[in-house]
Amino acid sequence: MNSKLKELFCPRSVAVIGASNSFDKLGYHVMKSLVEGNYQGRIFPVNPKAGEIRGITSHPSLGAIEEPVDVAVIVVPAPLVPATLDECGKKNVKGVVMITAGFREIEDSKGEALQEEIGRIARQYRLPVIGPNTFGFVNRTFGVNASFTPEFSRLKSGGIALVSQSGGFCHLCGFLAMDQRMGVSKLMSLGNRLNVGFPELLKHLIEEDEATRVITLYIEGLDNPRELLEAAKAARGGKHIIAYKSGKSEKGDSASKFHTGSLAGDYQIWRGAFRQAGILEVSSAEQMIDAAKALDVCAPLKGPRIAVLSGQAGPGMIAADGVEKAGLKLARFSAKTSEIINRLLPPIAIRSNPVDMGPAWYDAKSSFEILRASVEDENTDGVIFIAMFASANVALVKSLAEYRKGAEPFKKPVIAVFTAPRGIWEEEIAALDGAGGLSVVPTPERAGAVMGDLFAANAFRSRASVQGLNGL
Amino acid sequence: MNSKLKELFCPRSVAVIGASNSFDKLGYHVMKSLVEGNYQGRIFPVNPKAGEIRGITSHPSLGAIEEPVDVAVIVVPAPLVPATLDECGKKNVKGVVMITAGFREIEDSKGEALQEEIGRIARQYRLPVIGPNTFGFVNRTFGVNASFTPEFSRLKSGGIALVSQSGGFCHLCGFLAMDQRMGVSKLMSLGNRLNVGFPELLKHLIEEDEATRVITLYIEGLDNPRELLEAAKAARGGKHIIAYKSGKSEKGDSASKFHTGSLAGDYQIWRGAFRQAGILEVSSAEQMIDAAKALDVCAPLKGPRIAVLSGQAGPGMIAADGVEKAGLKLARFSAKTSEIINRLLPPIAIRSNPVDMGPAWYDAKSSFEILRASVEDENTDGVIFIAMFASANVALVKSLAEYRKGAEPFKKPVIAVFTAPRGIWEEEIAALDGAGGLSVVPTPERAGAVMGDLFAANAFRSRASVQGLNGL
Repeated sequence: MNSKLKELFCPRSVAVIGASNSFDKLGYHVMKSLVEGNYQGRIFPVNPKAGEIRGITSHPSLGAIEEPVDVAVIVVPAPLVPATLDECGKKNVKGVVMITAGFREIEDSKGEALQEEIGRIARQYRLPVIGPNTFGFVNRTFGVNASFTPEFSRLKSGGIALVSQSGGFCHLCGFLAMDQRMGVSKLMSLGNRLNVGFPELLKHLIEEDEATRVITLYIEGLDNPRELLEAAKAARGGKHIIAYKSGKSEKGDSASKFHTGSLAGDYQIWRGAFRQAGILEVSSAEQMIDAAKALDVCAPLKGPRIAVLSGQAGPGMIAADGVEKAGLKLARFSAKTSEIINRLLPPIAIRSNPVDMGPAWYDAKSSFEILRASVEDENTDGVIFIAMFASANVALVKSLAEYRKGAEPFKKPVIAVFTAPRGIWEEEIAALDGAGGLSVVPTPERAGAVMGDLFAANAFRSRASVQGLNGL
Repeated sequence: MNSKLKELFCPRSVAVIGASNSFDKLGYHVMKSLVEGNYQGRIFPVNPKAGEIRGITSHPSLGAIEEPVDVAVIVVPAPLVPATLDECGKKNVKGVVMITAGFREIEDSKGEALQEEIGRIARQYRLPVIGPNTFGFVNRTFGVNASFTPEFSRLKSGGIALVSQSGGFCHLCGFLAMDQRMGVSKLMSLGNRLNVGFPELLKHLIEEDEATRVITLYIEGLDNPRELLEAAKAARGGKHIIAYKSGKSEKGDSASKFHTGSLAGDYQIWRGAFRQAGILEVSSAEQMIDAAKALDVCAPLKGPRIAVLSGQAGPGMIAADGVEKAGLKLARFSAKTSEIINRLLPPIAIRSNPVDMGPAWYDAKSSFEILRASVEDENTDGVIFIAMFASANVALVKSLAEYRKGAEPFKKPVIAVFTAPRGIWEEEIAALDGAGGLSVVPTPERAGAVMGDLFAANAFRSRASVQGLNGL
């Protein structure tokens, strides 16, 4: 199955069965995603009635296409799906994206029967199926948007994969990711997981997907959690895995049953299992994005000693509180670093840690010298760098972006907070974020929290390598 | 002092002592704030050397201005401040905004002496002074931006006042507030609080400022916390007060000493005192904004029973988890509401609570009927309404905005989550947010959390009214 997943996610051609010119049909939006997403492979709209869809001649059926088809995206109504899937098998497609809903997740028992039927057909042809009941997938590395949301083509390309049990979560996380400049490799919802679930995806992302460095999972409930946990263990010491578990409450549990057909299960058992499998657990979409971004681009946080450098004292204090709340501590600078700070900052500033770099607003070079000294200091493990826009310091982030251009990546994690009104600093932040070992978060509180996540993730990795040495 | 504060925040004329044409001087940015902020009063730049600043003839000294001056903004270097303040007294100004830093907050003991000296002068003339060591203030109700950050004039006008011990926090919170369409009345940093501190501001905001309905405080440390707590008690049963305390750790404590000259103090004592004074405590800038927005515009949350309606099941489950995490519970719909939901949604959707309104994407009217029924249901106390953008449902939020136009305000709090890529739904969200008893937050997790804050704030208010009846 797994070798087929590689082909499924990098198709040379895609057929959209149920492609449409009508805005009210999901087949309209899937066609829009493929065409406007600038997909470089062949696109075959399939619709017995339409002549052309988005300027491409449509075919009355999959069988009527003469060229080979790698992936079929199915958007026809549920009762038509079995015959359609059979056609896919006969056409020898490599994989299927089944957007259609109305199977195991519905109250009506017909849904369960229908899902069993399509399961049989998929087995017969050894067809990997993403879905049913999915919005599709996006592979930003390969440049294909096989989903009903064209806007996902705007996602920055990067090292983070999101595998979700919910399409809605992909939309939540995907749009927040755009705002936070998170670099995405793949984004997908597994829906009802006919035959492609978390274990298969983990195996694929760990072994076959070089672009993916951090794997994020959104889980509601699973019939066999052990498979996922076992698959995750294969990543230990290598790719980071982050999980967000919902359906923590009893009510959530029953909602999960009806959403994608699995009970959520006891949350406390999940928590322990995540820890054991070396999976970093997060408790919000925002925390997931912050942690994934930092793990993707920053050096590991090998110790708890954090330096906080801030252009304004208040946000520096808030970040310092955040560092301690995350179980880490504020570094005590070496004599050398203290000397540099005392030389560069007047005695009106707080020069211990957090450092108030306010007086260096007009002298960006001093800020960078303090940043460099803090990163190089043997008494620090990571650095938080904060600047609030204030009109007078408008040049600060631009100078930093120029100063960092082509520089050696930071050898310790640097988490930056740059807060400004919309339209200000945006290009400069985009240039800095994710480059050279620096990751940007939106608030000082979240800077402290993400340091805690970096530390936990590094502990998982260290433990894995010790266990590796012991042959455990 | 307090009657003077009203004049200070609504000045008919402002002099900027230290106004400048040079970008490197804060006097440049203060002039920019006043002029570009479209201030309707008179502006008098004071600078012995400049002829014109932003097209306005400058005066060599405050005394050289013939017309009366209500407020003087001082941006000259610290050693010149005593003489300048004396001039302000002689000119009979109503109040002073002292942006200049270098007083009690610096390591050098000269700072302490200088602060004592200006304290004496201010007392002599009974001059209320915001600062020193402040970025200034913004009064969006009156339309004056007397700060060094012109961009604060972009803040939406509304019922929330922010009084901060840190200018940096005002910038953090102010820019987040712009993103979240928070309506602001006043925004200010008190800096070193020469003679205007939290108690004076609370008294002013509670008694003299009709535009302010919610008061938010950012506190690092105070010499006399009791005064603040006593002043806060005057608001009980009336305006809501929200506080964010930083400097919770030992390190933070010492940073506070050097930032605005006061020790932060034991955090646990603060927590208890906030509760006793009926002040809602928050632990991040984001939580502060969410809570303040909802308290400003929503009906009170009088009970714990929350309905979650979501266009996508996953985010609905996340909000449901958030509701339970906040100590509240998921409502069980009345028979009447269940009947409406079952009539409007097909059996493929989750129709209990959380409700999956996915099938109603193309039929906005059904969504609104379910929303209305949920608000009117005797078994609910508040409603969370969620929609993730997905191309096919692009019209949903626009329809909701049209449907809500001129409608009666919701009688229970409605917290909405609308997540979309930048540029999509923005106008529609702006039209909905803050109107008709509905407040928007950016994620389903934060929707659950803000319901918890609404519930706590209502409990404070109920307790206050019971105490009032008992004459306590």
